[in-house]
Amino acid sequence: MIFSSDNWAGAHPRVAAALSTHAAGHDPAYGSGALDAKVQATFSEIFEREVSVFFVGTGTAANALSLVSANKPGGLSFCHRESHVMDDECGAPEYFMGGSRLFAVDGDLGRINVEKLSTSVDRFAGENVHAGRPAAITITQATEVGTVYDLEHIRAISSIAKNHSLPLHMDGARFANALVSLGVSPAEMTWKSGVDMVSFGGTKNGCWCAEAVILFDTDRAREFAFIRKRAAQLFSKSRFIAAQFDAYFEDGLWLETATHANAMAARLAGHIRDSSKARLAWEPEANEVFAIMPVKLAEALQDNGARFYDWHTPHGFGANIAPGEKLWRFVTGFATAAEEVDRFGDLIS
Amino acid sequence: MIFSSDNWAGAHPRVAAALSTHAAGHDPAYGSGALDAKVQATFSEIFEREVSVFFVGTGTAANALSLVSANKPGGLSFCHRESHVMDDECGAPEYFMGGSRLFAVDGDLGRINVEKLSTSVDRFAGENVHAGRPAAITITQATEVGTVYDLEHIRAISSIAKNHSLPLHMDGARFANALVSLGVSPAEMTWKSGVDMVSFGGTKNGCWCAEAVILFDTDRAREFAFIRKRAAQLFSKSRFIAAQFDAYFEDGLWLETATHANAMAARLAGHIRDSSKARLAWEPEANEVFAIMPVKLAEALQDNGARFYDWHTPHGFGANIAPGEKLWRFVTGFATAAEEVDRFGDLIS
Amino acid sequence: MIFSSDNWAGAHPRVAAALSTHAAGHDPAYGSGALDAKVQATFSEIFEREVSVFFVGTGTAANALSLVSANKPGGLSFCHRESHVMDDECGAPEYFMGGSRLFAVDGDLGRINVEKLSTSVDRFAGENVHAGRPAAITITQATEVGTVYDLEHIRAISSIAKNHSLPLHMDGARFANALVSLGVSPAEMTWKSGVDMVSFGGTKNGCWCAEAVILFDTDRAREFAFIRKRAAQLFSKSRFIAAQFDAYFEDGLWLETATHANAMAARLAGHIRDSSKARLAWEPEANEVFAIMPVKLAEALQDNGARFYDWHTPHGFGANIAPGEKLWRFVTGFATAAEEVDRFGDLIS
Amino acid sequence: MIFSSDNWAGAHPRVAAALSTHAAGHDPAYGSGALDAKVQATFSEIFEREVSVFFVGTGTAANALSLVSANKPGGLSFCHRESHVMDDECGAPEYFMGGSRLFAVDGDLGRINVEKLSTSVDRFAGENVHAGRPAAITITQATEVGTVYDLEHIRAISSIAKNHSLPLHMDGARFANALVSLGVSPAEMTWKSGVDMVSFGGTKNGCWCAEAVILFDTDRAREFAFIRKRAAQLFSKSRFIAAQFDAYFEDGLWLETATHANAMAARLAGHIRDSSKARLAWEPEANEVFAIMPVKLAEALQDNGARFYDWHTPHGFGANIAPGEKLWRFVTGFATAAEEVDRFGDLIS
Repeated sequence: MIFSSDNWAGAHPRVAAALSTHAAGHDPAYGSGALDAKVQATFSEIFEREVSVFFVGTGTAANALSLVSANKPGGLSFCHRESHVMDDECGAPEYFMGGSRLFAVDGDLGRINVEKLSTSVDRFAGENVHAGRPAAITITQATEVGTVYDLEHIRAISSIAKNHSLPLHMDGARFANALVSLGVSPAEMTWKSGVDMVSFGGTKNGCWCAEAVILFDTDRAREFAFIRKRAAQLFSKSRFIAAQFDAYFEDGLWLETATHANAMAARLAGHIRDSSKARLAWEPEANEVFAIMPVKLAEALQDNGARFYDWHTPHGFGANIAPGEKLWRFVTGFATAAEEVDRFGDLIS
Repeated sequence: MIFSSDNWAGAHPRVAAALSTHAAGHDPAYGSGALDAKVQATFSEIFEREVSVFFVGTGTAANALSLVSANKPGGLSFCHRESHVMDDECGAPEYFMGGSRLFAVDGDLGRINVEKLSTSVDRFAGENVHAGRPAAITITQATEVGTVYDLEHIRAISSIAKNHSLPLHMDGARFANALVSLGVSPAEMTWKSGVDMVSFGGTKNGCWCAEAVILFDTDRAREFAFIRKRAAQLFSKSRFIAAQFDAYFEDGLWLETATHANAMAARLAGHIRDSSKARLAWEPEANEVFAIMPVKLAEALQDNGARFYDWHTPHGFGANIAPGEKLWRFVTGFATAAEEVDRFGDLIS
Repeated sequence: MIFSSDNWAGAHPRVAAALSTHAAGHDPAYGSGALDAKVQATFSEIFEREVSVFFVGTGTAANALSLVSANKPGGLSFCHRESHVMDDECGAPEYFMGGSRLFAVDGDLGRINVEKLSTSVDRFAGENVHAGRPAAITITQATEVGTVYDLEHIRAISSIAKNHSLPLHMDGARFANALVSLGVSPAEMTWKSGVDMVSFGGTKNGCWCAEAVILFDTDRAREFAFIRKRAAQLFSKSRFIAAQFDAYFEDGLWLETATHANAMAARLAGHIRDSSKARLAWEPEANEVFAIMPVKLAEALQDNGARFYDWHTPHGFGANIAPGEKLWRFVTGFATAAEEVDRFGDLIS
Repeated sequence: MIFSSDNWAGAHPRVAAALSTHAAGHDPAYGSGALDAKVQATFSEIFEREVSVFFVGTGTAANALSLVSANKPGGLSFCHRESHVMDDECGAPEYFMGGSRLFAVDGDLGRINVEKLSTSVDRFAGENVHAGRPAAITITQATEVGTVYDLEHIRAISSIAKNHSLPLHMDGARFANALVSLGVSPAEMTWKSGVDMVSFGGTKNGCWCAEAVILFDTDRAREFAFIRKRAAQLFSKSRFIAAQFDAYFEDGLWLETATHANAMAARLAGHIRDSSKARLAWEPEANEVFAIMPVKLAEALQDNGARFYDWHTPHGFGANIAPGEKLWRFVTGFATAAEEVDRFGDLIS
């Protein structure tokens, strides 16, 4: 009953096996080998246009370097107040940007509120040197609280971005979970809706360590090659990331694992919905479930072997939580077994 | 006949297999899992004292973050003029340090000259705000040109470091190759000779992607945890690095692969020594061989399938190279086959 | 009727004259001359203890470098949501810190709310590498909205700082205005109340360009010398700043100019209080007055030669402003004439 | 007999007086006042074309921010090995650039050797991500050792810059001294010879604190406004710099003071040339004289009240200095009196 995080899992057997399959022989280093080229072509197929692909080692790197690529002196990158870049990366985006600021925008359930974003960007649109100026907008898909931006929402945000000539970045650490949740194509969820750069995550959904920055404007690629190397994210045996992605995409494995993870979340949510002891904080839309339950119950569940974390109460959500209660996060993944979910359901029924 | 680089190889089968062995199940993320702890204990055994171990993804990251850990405002880090940090990391050390400078020191065959180092450090010892001040010394073991610092040389350098209260860092991207070349223990080559921090490389010697920063002063560890996370080098499924190191150390695999690589370099050097068409630039001491030969010969060899690069002529070495000739680098690794070396030998005999 | 800013004035005649008085002759550069030493001694007298004094050129530099001096990897500096470091320095603090973040804390009328500060600092006290960790607290005295922290308030904040071993910085761009408002000594307003570093501003209160960082812990001085030089803030003819401060302190000029500026603000506030067309937003406590009035009235006043700016509505204050109205800021200074204030009073009476 | 540095002087009386003349009244801050506009127009006249002018507080800032404006990820800025940016700015250029490197090029007597520059730039022209890539070239005019680039030399360097699409920056801390030495126009010495950016220094030549970055490509200005503010170099009472430049340019004062300084250097050089105890290291071309003399003589001179510094022996110059001797630097300025020079002449005659 491990619901701590989707990164507590190891790797999908087919992904791990690929690392043995491709271990022998010699191949050019630093991303110029044949397998790298093959996987980059796959990305272009998946996105239905030519894209530039840069493998990096962590989601934090993918996010930070995307924002570096959009950065300007005095630049502000607009993000959700409780986004991963803001809350969980030790200030890496600002560090890599050399100090440019993340600007927090509110919004319910992890999604940036379009009007508030518009007001915030407008405030800096005058390019006043004291206040700083807009440089980028970044959204998280799926969000930190298990919700998903629908296409309309993404387009409303990209419309603001276009009006201010700002690139729109998507933190896709859980890209696949959002994709299968919406039932749309990668192209629809990204460039067809105005997204310019994607942190494409493979790690949480079945890889060991496979992240990529996808640039739809391939002119940015030359700059990005230096941005990545300077940031110590150019891997010599880049093939080890390519091999993971190769297996990840083969026969749609990535969609399969994401579909499974989301289904497990829905199954877990069902148990919580039926429970008299706990209640859903909001409806899950991807592979994370948030529930409100008494601390005592949570402790008892943990004593019984369940693993999950309490979660920082979102801005403006506190009124829903009674004294003695807390908000708890449950994450499912490719390796979550239905039996474990049901065993947990029994404990709270 | 691939002698381009030791990072053109994939992974040793036992290392790759470990990634399948440990792929199943759930384990705490971000380095707090059981396998991480096991491997960290192994590092302490190998170094014969308690050490702090920080896995990172690239050698560039290991070097850059080690220097960040030693950095001060106006700091200068002394390195060999043709070291990897200086020539091959796109300025990553200075980027991560926020602008502190690498200061180039000369020395024959890739090794810092002790007297020149002493003069250089002395020049800044007055801590004049205009000139800047010493912050660290970093040496590469084995060096970029396939030579090795003997213990006496390391101690002479660490003595300068101690006199100026500077930490001494060792870039050990080819740590194992140097170690087996000297026939000493890891402790002797490092802290017993005054080294404070090591970039411990596993990638070139049989891993896919396994690097670690080793701190002998464990008090530095708390700061380093933030330095690493902020630099986007804390891996969520850190287990995938631990698994590689686990296999790497098991039954002395790492010493075996390094011994093999060095032996292949010696074998190759033998062929060159015997050749009438090419000559050794200097005697190899680890897994890299440098030879002088006519460009025409090199092209013919490459047409025959041999892969190797020309190399930037070291400072002061130019006189040894005649018109029409160039300096060429050949790197051997765990996956270099004796037959391939001999096939190459035949071509130049 | 210039109420745009206290930096629209030039310099007090005695300050300007000092620059002629000291223009002749030669003196050691970079702060080591006799006049520099004299003025530094004056600072120690004023603060009733030995202090380290570092002249810099702008208040932005004083603030940014103070925060650099307190910075750590992953560090967070807590400030008021609408403070100058947050709103008006183009991200300079974060730029100089290499990316460490300013963390916004709310509070009425420009002053950090003690409980909210405590909650915010506590949130990061666990030194979790993902979230970052506290590095400093900075308060603005007088605040951006013309209010002043009383000693009790400063002590409550410094108590939080001490509990978390954080340095407390005071942005004293309007130090003198706050000081004469409170009627306390410089020592009481700073180190006796737990302040560790001060950005001591002279520019707004009668100098051309004279700012200083005051460190009460003189051990920090050696680091700070490098921090300043590296930041391009070590002036060769540092004597030109010393000469200004020399005149500024002589015969208490600085207290005189601040007393005058505050009196002019009080006089202006009186006119607004008496007006039927405008109303005070809150009571002024230093040399800034904030008033609510219709946009049409403001435009008419400006047509009549009055100069003042509208002001970003503070968080939570909007309900006080009716449609058609705005919040306006009026700043008085050493060069504000009573007649001009009264002339303005006539216009709104 | 003060020959320590041209920054040991105070300010020219006319420059100091201007600060009193313009002290009264109110004027828009942050560079938008009438006097700022007037002086900016004067700069355009002086350079015979429209230029963008950015006042900053120190020569270090002018140099560092010029290089920031030209910077790219992985960028290398080529400078003379013993230039001011390299030797005397505590790493400020790299700090402000966020880590991009200065690349040292050799050359006799403080001037970059054109062939060596060409070779160095070529080495990185391939834009290899490991090695980094060229971003800018910067020359010092007059040089750190009192020599001057003639127009032909500048054009040879700018031709390399153009070939590689690199901006050429001129560190003109002693711009006026070089200008009157060459007897050319400001336009000829800069944009007509291919210079793109100038650090225009007024401080050493008679101002208290007046430096400016001149951009010939005015499109760069918008970016530069943010670069400057973010770097804490936007002065609120910017008028105090404008006032100095106003006096500096009025009636050609700046050329007069530079001519005087150079004449004093020539006069001093004459004394040294005639001396039997000391000898010129090389011929002075601006306002700095370098002499070789025994340490004992230097000490005796200093005991007699002369002030001057020993100087770091230029690369490759050591052979000219005998045991017991040292290289000494003498700097003259607008405030150097002929009588003092002659008094010194008497002491060494």
